[in-house]
Amino acid sequence: MTKYTEADMLDMSPKEFRSIVRSGKWTGHSMNKCRGYAVTDMVIIPKEYAYDYLVFSHRNPEIVSIVDMTEAGPPRPLRVAPEADLRTDLPRYLLYKYGQVIDEPTDIKKYWRGYLVAFLTGCSGSFDWALKDANVQYQVNGVFSTNISCIPVGPFRGNMAVSCRLFKTAHDAIRAVQISSRHSIMHGAPVHVGDAEAIGIKDISKPDLIQPWEGLTPRQPVEGEVAMFWSCGATNRIIAVEAKLPLMIVDYPICVFITDKLAEELAVL
Amino acid sequence: MTKYTEADMLDMSPKEFRSIVRSGKWTGHSMNKCRGYAVTDMVIIPKEYAYDYLVFSHRNPEIVSIVDMTEAGPPRPLRVAPEADLRTDLPRYLLYKYGQVIDEPTDIKKYWRGYLVAFLTGCSGSFDWALKDANVQYQVNGVFSTNISCIPVGPFRGNMAVSCRLFKTAHDAIRAVQISSRHSIMHGAPVHVGDAEAIGIKDISKPDLIQPWEGLTPRQPVEGEVAMFWSCGATNRIIAVEAKLPLMIVDYPICVFITDKLAEELAVL
Repeated sequence: MTKYTEADMLDMSPKEFRSIVRSGKWTGHSMNKCRGYAVTDMVIIPKEYAYDYLVFSHRNPEIVSIVDMTEAGPPRPLRVAPEADLRTDLPRYLLYKYGQVIDEPTDIKKYWRGYLVAFLTGCSGSFDWALKDANVQYQVNGVFSTNISCIPVGPFRGNMAVSCRLFKTAHDAIRAVQISSRHSIMHGAPVHVGDAEAIGIKDISKPDLIQPWEGLTPRQPVEGEVAMFWSCGATNRIIAVEAKLPLMIVDYPICVFITDKLAEELAVL
Repeated sequence: MTKYTEADMLDMSPKEFRSIVRSGKWTGHSMNKCRGYAVTDMVIIPKEYAYDYLVFSHRNPEIVSIVDMTEAGPPRPLRVAPEADLRTDLPRYLLYKYGQVIDEPTDIKKYWRGYLVAFLTGCSGSFDWALKDANVQYQVNGVFSTNISCIPVGPFRGNMAVSCRLFKTAHDAIRAVQISSRHSIMHGAPVHVGDAEAIGIKDISKPDLIQPWEGLTPRQPVEGEVAMFWSCGATNRIIAVEAKLPLMIVDYPICVFITDKLAEELAVL
């Protein structure tokens, strides 16, 4: 099997990267690949629930921003990657039946049906490029469930998941508010700064949903660091458990979809 | 003497308000007057030091942003209030000789000389209107000296003064970063968030430079509140002591200049 280094994948185009995922040549995660490109989370549900999900996204814009959506049937995100195939182009999927995970496949071809629709939803991994380009000093500290509840719509309900980043100084944190605000479709500004317990996170060194994807050990902030929290697409996993749909497929942790759009192409300013 | 209520003065035009100040009909401070209008601090120095002060402002843009400046002689801010007279239109002045306060007059006509130049510098009181318009919940907690040192230029040196605001929630604080960022000439984004001691403030309930101007008692943040700190024109008082110029005149605390420009006319976005 071909070996790809992180450096190789950082320089790949989204088309190249998706092709090595599709062909099974890369089975690892898809964070920090294809430098500068926007990434999204994904939710696939039967079309009969699609309108409720759209209303849910409108009621909870900081939780779900729709970057692209498909019509029932063709698994093609026509706006952000028209040649992609959402059944094969993410490294791994989580498949829920009635709120239970029943499979964690690397493609979902055998599960795909003509009545399914896919939503690509904003992911904060998209503005990490902009933070790095601005030399903002921070590290990702994982993804946590919180006590912030979504406004329920139809079967969709649950608490918000947040990604946590630790900023070296208050200045870095303030710059990150400015920069992430430009990426409003990718969760935009943080939902919280400072005290993690205030949003129901008991131990900031123990992410319960996703470990930091850059190989770092999650930890307490050190003197002078500022913790900030952004809404996270992992909320879809919480919603999947609550909604108990006959079928709901989401991206496996940090196995995001890489679009053909640069994050800056989708930024508001 | 005519009595003016806060409501009267909130509805006045800057021209009206400056005229009651100029005529001695109003001798109180000038914060929260003339709803929506940009306010500035002021520095008056002999022209021979003016270039150094401009270099100082360029080296320390978060401390001093020049909103307007006069040529030597006419005390008219031609850009933001061409009919104003800077010798009479601020309620009170602080006059330094060789670093010592020698007078606190309500006008400076007798001190004005043809070799003096005036700088109007950005003041965060300008974006308080925008914060209020956006229903951001906070209270002003006074102005403090810090341990953040300016980059010295010529005689101009000293530590930064900061205004402190206590935001009810982290969300309010994050909104305030976004909104103040648009007002970049009025100090823009905060310089610090969170722990006051990190910038040398020993007791956040004891402002050493200016008390809160809305009649509130300065205090510790309560549970859930977030303290944020913006650079403040009171730095000019610290600089005046350090620079020891033969003459330096600044605005007396919270006796800012009210321009003819709406704060939003001077915002970047």
